[in-house]
Amino acid sequence: MSTQENKTHLILTGDRPTGPLHLGHYVGSLSNRVKFQHQYKQFIMLADAQALTDNMDDPGKVHRNVVEVALDYLAVGIDPKLSTIFIQSQIPELTELTFYYLNLVTVARLERNPTIKEEIRLRNFERDIPAGFLTYPVSQAADISAFKATLVPVGEDQIPMIEQTNEIVRRFNRLANQEILVECQALVPEIGRLPGIDGKAKMSKSLGNVINLGATESEIRAAVKKTYTDPLHLRIEDPGHLEGNVAFTYLDAFDQDKESLAEMKAHYVRGGLGDGTVKKRLEECLQELIRPIRERRAALAQDRGYIIQILKEGTEKAREVAARTTSEVKTALGLKHF
Amino acid sequence: MSTQENKTHLILTGDRPTGPLHLGHYVGSLSNRVKFQHQYKQFIMLADAQALTDNMDDPGKVHRNVVEVALDYLAVGIDPKLSTIFIQSQIPELTELTFYYLNLVTVARLERNPTIKEEIRLRNFERDIPAGFLTYPVSQAADISAFKATLVPVGEDQIPMIEQTNEIVRRFNRLANQEILVECQALVPEIGRLPGIDGKAKMSKSLGNVINLGATESEIRAAVKKTYTDPLHLRIEDPGHLEGNVAFTYLDAFDQDKESLAEMKAHYVRGGLGDGTVKKRLEECLQELIRPIRERRAALAQDRGYIIQILKEGTEKAREVAARTTSEVKTALGLKHF
Repeated sequence: MSTQENKTHLILTGDRPTGPLHLGHYVGSLSNRVKFQHQYKQFIMLADAQALTDNMDDPGKVHRNVVEVALDYLAVGIDPKLSTIFIQSQIPELTELTFYYLNLVTVARLERNPTIKEEIRLRNFERDIPAGFLTYPVSQAADISAFKATLVPVGEDQIPMIEQTNEIVRRFNRLANQEILVECQALVPEIGRLPGIDGKAKMSKSLGNVINLGATESEIRAAVKKTYTDPLHLRIEDPGHLEGNVAFTYLDAFDQDKESLAEMKAHYVRGGLGDGTVKKRLEECLQELIRPIRERRAALAQDRGYIIQILKEGTEKAREVAARTTSEVKTALGLKHF
Repeated sequence: MSTQENKTHLILTGDRPTGPLHLGHYVGSLSNRVKFQHQYKQFIMLADAQALTDNMDDPGKVHRNVVEVALDYLAVGIDPKLSTIFIQSQIPELTELTFYYLNLVTVARLERNPTIKEEIRLRNFERDIPAGFLTYPVSQAADISAFKATLVPVGEDQIPMIEQTNEIVRRFNRLANQEILVECQALVPEIGRLPGIDGKAKMSKSLGNVINLGATESEIRAAVKKTYTDPLHLRIEDPGHLEGNVAFTYLDAFDQDKESLAEMKAHYVRGGLGDGTVKKRLEECLQELIRPIRERRAALAQDRGYIIQILKEGTEKAREVAARTTSEVKTALGLKHF
């Protein structure tokens, strides 16, 4: 605990528990969290309440995946002694803050949010946007500010959400005439998004182009076999292209032996190296990366009670922090009567 | 308690605590509540959280008026043993329900709500509607359904809010595949809205045409003097008009001696009865009505601790009910993990 207290920055991060986590999550966020937990105070939120904004038709899916995602966290090395893992829906204070912050942002402002605009387009919502979806940046502002987070890891495309949060923070502080809430900064990861095995820009469960962190040996083998390479590289002796070649993008991310990888790339480009050889190396790397994760995951999954206990303790700790902020906010809004 | 339990209908009603209550409230709702508390279970909400949706610039006003409005309630005869008086903001479960219900209603549906449309017009919000204002019918649905209220006293113009609530109730129950929430009925009072002393359709603090329930003798006298009558009734011997004549509207509402009133009306219409005489009678009626209210109010105001105690007990009782419903809702949404 004493080391926790010495850390100046506080990170809020998390996932919507809508399915098992995959290599895209590993590269984009999980591996960073494993590092960050030593440098910063870190709160990791299982955003089940937020997940319902577009999964109201299947709440069972969200429910089941809370424990599944927690297993993924622990399996990759997130340490509950260093990171506070908690369940969003178990902290009613987050909905209280959302409720009051809704008065600090106009409908027009929410409709202008580029992230929301894009997500509305992706989901074909058009005029039938659920109100909970339009207002979810306000809910994010509640989550971030409840913990007085100073750093929020997000992709480039999520920066408008951070701006929206800081607008609400500033508006509230001005209203309260006190610096109660804290502005945050986006922490954009150096390594960008991992493409799907099919070459699509994003690895995503709904696109069916993922390799899960709990994948079996044969699932990994099958996925590597399907991994997109260079469609113009028909014969071994032909020169191959690296650009858009997912096998090499993955090797860049996961092959620790950078020297051999550089040689392999040169060989591939000048011709004479078959996709089979490249994929063999990729499979080695992925089997090596995922095996210990899968094994830890399987071992942890034996003791569901332990996972629940970790979530319970993390949620209690997180709730204390959120309750303190909410109490300050409500006091400033004249909502304390006894 | 046993009588409470035998009552089949449950009423949810309340006020936004933004100022002292006046005769308009008395006629339109308070006097009914004094009756209803014997017939129905009755929960009366001091809607401080909702009041902030358009008073975010002056939360102190809302805070102060919570106790003031509670004083008005007790002074008119609302009995905390028969009615549960509670403070909205002290029941976080109401914001939780609001949060989840936001997923059950589209932005387009909220924008079509005629009550909201009209209130947006009145407040000159136009494109700059605070999100909390657009979504407040969802918050109302949360309040009503949290208590499984079956009757909600509202004016004619608020009926769309009840429809919105029932839409959410039906949608949720369909989703949960269980009858967890309960539909409610609007209870439109027989006696309509009391006009302002200036003849405007509505008695309203912001229009400055009210007589408060705590008005002093001289305030009542002054208000009666200013009360709008028949502008064409210049000389005593002229025939007078009753239509739009606020003095007579008030006499209709407050003069218990219906026979004398009928005679007075006939006399006024055929000519020979001066406004002074009419107003003298009106003042008698109002002084008689308000004196005991004012006196009880002043006595109660001496013991703020007692008022706070009543609000605390009412809020605890209300919270138990709301928490039970919220627990059912969250269970159905897969949001119970421990």
